[in-house]
Amino acid sequence: MNDMHERISLSFNAQGLMATLGAELVSVAEGEVHIALPFSTHVAQQHGFVHAGAVTTIVDNACGYAALSMAPTGCEVVTAEFKVNFVRPAVGERFLAIGKVVNAGKLLTVCTGEVRALTGTEWKVVAIMQATIATVRS
Amino acid sequence: MNDMHERISLSFNAQGLMATLGAELVSVAEGEVHIALPFSTHVAQQHGFVHAGAVTTIVDNACGYAALSMAPTGCEVVTAEFKVNFVRPAVGERFLAIGKVVNAGKLLTVCTGEVRALTGTEWKVVAIMQATIATVRS
Amino acid sequence: MNDMHERISLSFNAQGLMATLGAELVSVAEGEVHIALPFSTHVAQQHGFVHAGAVTTIVDNACGYAALSMAPTGCEVVTAEFKVNFVRPAVGERFLAIGKVVNAGKLLTVCTGEVRALTGTEWKVVAIMQATIATVRS
Amino acid sequence: MNDMHERISLSFNAQGLMATLGAELVSVAEGEVHIALPFSTHVAQQHGFVHAGAVTTIVDNACGYAALSMAPTGCEVVTAEFKVNFVRPAVGERFLAIGKVVNAGKLLTVCTGEVRALTGTEWKVVAIMQATIATVRS
Repeated sequence: MNDMHERISLSFNAQGLMATLGAELVSVAEGEVHIALPFSTHVAQQHGFVHAGAVTTIVDNACGYAALSMAPTGCEVVTAEFKVNFVRPAVGERFLAIGKVVNAGKLLTVCTGEVRALTGTEWKVVAIMQATIATVRS
Repeated sequence: MNDMHERISLSFNAQGLMATLGAELVSVAEGEVHIALPFSTHVAQQHGFVHAGAVTTIVDNACGYAALSMAPTGCEVVTAEFKVNFVRPAVGERFLAIGKVVNAGKLLTVCTGEVRALTGTEWKVVAIMQATIATVRS
Repeated sequence: MNDMHERISLSFNAQGLMATLGAELVSVAEGEVHIALPFSTHVAQQHGFVHAGAVTTIVDNACGYAALSMAPTGCEVVTAEFKVNFVRPAVGERFLAIGKVVNAGKLLTVCTGEVRALTGTEWKVVAIMQATIATVRS
Repeated sequence: MNDMHERISLSFNAQGLMATLGAELVSVAEGEVHIALPFSTHVAQQHGFVHAGAVTTIVDNACGYAALSMAPTGCEVVTAEFKVNFVRPAVGERFLAIGKVVNAGKLLTVCTGEVRALTGTEWKVVAIMQATIATVRS
């Protein structure tokens, strides 16, 4: 585990909400982070699908950590804003959020993200995100 | 409690994620819904503030239910997309999400939302949302 | 005309696109700027309504100048991103874009905007915007 | 030129704003449309770069027509909303907007778009968009 992975892993494990939802940090590469969420009724909405808020939370985190993976040493990142489209109901056994850096600027990093749902052996995209993340001195 | 309030209350209570986060349905009026979230480390990020995902979840719900409060009988609502800006760290003892309908169309309802954080007796806006909610036959 | 108004007026008049569209700077106050656009077929889409792009352009400018009106001396502003909802067709004789600062941070200013269409004596909101504007040293 | 190309080409040519800006329909494929804009001071902002509003206008159109290229016969499309990030100044001799369908639903089509700027022989992405387009009976 390199420094970047370790730093992001420590931060992820310090987020109470990740444990509450049951989310797992799957992989960290420069500019791309994957986070998984197994289905559970604890993260569901009224029809038993995964709640848009839980879907958003994991892809927000994936984008934020993707931005952090490219931030200069001594810097932290803060989500300034994001936009998510929900393209189909979040039905599945397991969900994977993928956040990728599109452009890493000095002040702002722009990321795109998506969440895929796994049913059997088939993955389907359920949501896509476009996010703006600010780099700040820590 | 009128029909609309009852319908929204039943739906809210059927969302596993609301119980998981500890969110409470505070008020329902035509076109405006309030949802509260007390601070807890279970909904926190790595610095102990409330996670952007939890902030987003309650204001997404507030906007969705505000849209539902104006939907025709026999219809349901589905969040098509939203955008959130985080204007300051979500620090506070209690958080209040307010969702309001700006325009209720036949197919799409546009809402704005905000989340306020309470510290002592002072409320501060921590996030604002603009959301598009689709009306579908149930 | 005070300094702020003069500065914004000079910048507005230096934008070739404003003259091309026929847009007019209507008013400048601290944190709020109004820009008008008379209807013309030069800014129309295929049905003769005003094009979403023209609607967006004037409210982007109104938000940007609202942010500039609150920026520290020696700073400029750059639109980082925005989101617009089109709530009804942009039909009318005259359009008014209103940009307002919601939160002016050190690095980022968050604004909301709307565009109203005038038909006869009636104004109707046709679009709403939520924008993030970066403050940069000039 | 097939039917789809012809339909989109007719609609494009009926948009007054496209002629006003000097935009050109470059290509139409199922689910992907390209629109170009040569640089001119008529579409510039105060520093002589292309105005964010013009950048947005061409990529909004590219996304809208990409959605239209996959819409059922007898249907039209209307932009419900979009979000754009501006990742670097729109400096260049020529700009290319690319709109692509990510998911074509019955009511709503979600597209992503980008605008690239050409300087010499180098293309750089200056903006990215995520858009929601409604399908309506015409």
